[in-house]
Amino acid sequence: MSIFVQTHQDTTSGARLGLLTLGHGTVETPVFMPVGTAGTVKGIFHREVEAIGYSLILGNTYHLYLRPGLEVLDQFGGLHTFSGWGGNLLTDSGGFQVFSLSNLRKIEEQGVAFQSHIDGSRHLFTPESVVDTQRVIGSDIAMVLDVCTPPQIDFRKAKEAMELTHRWAQRALSHRSALGDAFAGKLFGIVQGNFYEELRSASAAYFNEMDFDGIAIGGLSVGETKEQFSHFLAHTAAQVTRTKPRYVMGIGSPDYILEAVENGIDMFDCVLATRMARNGGLFTRDGVITMKKAIHRYDKAPIEEGCSCLACTTYSRAYLHHLFKSGEMLGPMLATLHNLTYFYTFMQEVRSSIAENRFASFKRQYLERFYGPR
Amino acid sequence: MSIFVQTHQDTTSGARLGLLTLGHGTVETPVFMPVGTAGTVKGIFHREVEAIGYSLILGNTYHLYLRPGLEVLDQFGGLHTFSGWGGNLLTDSGGFQVFSLSNLRKIEEQGVAFQSHIDGSRHLFTPESVVDTQRVIGSDIAMVLDVCTPPQIDFRKAKEAMELTHRWAQRALSHRSALGDAFAGKLFGIVQGNFYEELRSASAAYFNEMDFDGIAIGGLSVGETKEQFSHFLAHTAAQVTRTKPRYVMGIGSPDYILEAVENGIDMFDCVLATRMARNGGLFTRDGVITMKKAIHRYDKAPIEEGCSCLACTTYSRAYLHHLFKSGEMLGPMLATLHNLTYFYTFMQEVRSSIAENRFASFKRQYLERFYGPR
Repeated sequence: MSIFVQTHQDTTSGARLGLLTLGHGTVETPVFMPVGTAGTVKGIFHREVEAIGYSLILGNTYHLYLRPGLEVLDQFGGLHTFSGWGGNLLTDSGGFQVFSLSNLRKIEEQGVAFQSHIDGSRHLFTPESVVDTQRVIGSDIAMVLDVCTPPQIDFRKAKEAMELTHRWAQRALSHRSALGDAFAGKLFGIVQGNFYEELRSASAAYFNEMDFDGIAIGGLSVGETKEQFSHFLAHTAAQVTRTKPRYVMGIGSPDYILEAVENGIDMFDCVLATRMARNGGLFTRDGVITMKKAIHRYDKAPIEEGCSCLACTTYSRAYLHHLFKSGEMLGPMLATLHNLTYFYTFMQEVRSSIAENRFASFKRQYLERFYGPR
Repeated sequence: MSIFVQTHQDTTSGARLGLLTLGHGTVETPVFMPVGTAGTVKGIFHREVEAIGYSLILGNTYHLYLRPGLEVLDQFGGLHTFSGWGGNLLTDSGGFQVFSLSNLRKIEEQGVAFQSHIDGSRHLFTPESVVDTQRVIGSDIAMVLDVCTPPQIDFRKAKEAMELTHRWAQRALSHRSALGDAFAGKLFGIVQGNFYEELRSASAAYFNEMDFDGIAIGGLSVGETKEQFSHFLAHTAAQVTRTKPRYVMGIGSPDYILEAVENGIDMFDCVLATRMARNGGLFTRDGVITMKKAIHRYDKAPIEEGCSCLACTTYSRAYLHHLFKSGEMLGPMLATLHNLTYFYTFMQEVRSSIAENRFASFKRQYLERFYGPR
């Protein structure tokens, strides 16, 4: 049975509404997932994340595997119990972090060997082991191990990486079958192909035929230009089946999210909202404001008029300015609460605009106000 | 009219119960005040501080004067509005921080000149100016500027410092009178005299005759031995009038608090509870546990069985261990919530034991369990 039902197709764009049914409840799409790297969304209680409205967050397999480690998670029956998170949990495969955080790594047919960025210890991720790891974590959605490649590698290397990604995906599926009911989550494949149309098409076609519960478009937002992103997002999205939930990993900013939604993408995640919050970057409809700027020193206005979060209903920009200037923890705490509220509200508005067949104009107006005339 | 009413005297010790009526409500004493240095109790929302039960917290005049600064606080009508704190606020005079944080300082008859530890800018605190500063902050209880001296200075120097403290206290009182209704808070004097009985007695006698709303015993817990602390606390407390609220500044740990209560002290403050929390030191009835220790890696128990805080009702020690090992903000956040809950509950138990005339045995049993047999 499919975990995804498309409930509405916007008439002004490729955007769509859907319902994603997972182990810990049903999620309205398009959905933005806050990132809870190591079993906590940084700077905020899980109950506050839930109170805002989020019912699906992302955890990082690489981090969780290293700390607290599988022995601990196993003893606690998974991350939900361990971290007190009652909603749905998606975990990445760990592959991206191996490529971006680990010093030493070696990709072989078998999997990827790497050294921990924490203590230098040696580990091996295989397509099978990361399924096992995500089973222990208790992920509602697990991702397959893939080979992430940077922009500007040559065609031959990109093709090899894609083909290895495909073989790994097949092994992950076989392993999931072998596990049977012991694996309770859903499993998503990841389309690769670097920045080559031919490869992207081939990879999309490959995954369309496989027995995954959803499909991610990987290898975007990895350092390419905005034009490359747009082009390859549209190119790939057009070829990925619309019968399954479609996920673009690692985005992001409102413009990238809107572009993904426009292309019928249902899911995305990014650290941007929470990381910027910790650095004093606060989201408003009129763009990001930098809380440390002297202009806010006497500013009695809330971060954003009409926002329902604790930071906006209780405090002034001047107080937030003071907290960030003084390096007080409460600054990042309030900013995280605000930015996550902002992104949740933003996605509600996105969904409303789709339901009312006005996504195209919503996107245009939103971008104009947020980024200014371009 | 006195702001303090003694409601009960323990029959087994010098401990007493009282009610302290201030601008933002009545406070049961003995009371422990969490420290909110710069307009925030670090790592916790003010509403959580209130939810635990606290109705009186401390702010640091030195920090608030430098940041956000008086111009900002003045525009916001004080720290209550600025920081969203609805309870009572006590501020120190800033003197102690000038002595402990500022690089350059010079004490003269007029006041104390110092350089900001933040930007090196030069400032002068006088007995009058710190009353003005605390008026702008909107403190419910303001403290007079005093001269803090370290242990082991000679008698002559200690006497000079005390006499200057006395002259400054007189100037503060005169300034308060001159301000009239413009100064809405209460003003406390601070007994000094270093570690000389004769001086402590003289200082207590001096302040007993003055028109302060309460009296603090200053210059304790400044690096002296535990024996010195005990001796000079008892010596001084015995000579300070019992008609006013009695405050020992900068304590503390449960043993110091119990000793103060035993000597009829009504108020104390300390960063210990919150600072230790941020470093992973968690208070339990059986002593402080160090959350980073490997022993907690698989520990399914809460920090403390029966504790009502979010950390204890939702999470295991193993999760807290993971958070502190991973350097996640949520560790300090949960630990602060727990430690402040611990100290509030502790003070409730202290007050119950006094009400039931069993403080002496409560103290003995508490210390034995917390610190182990000595």
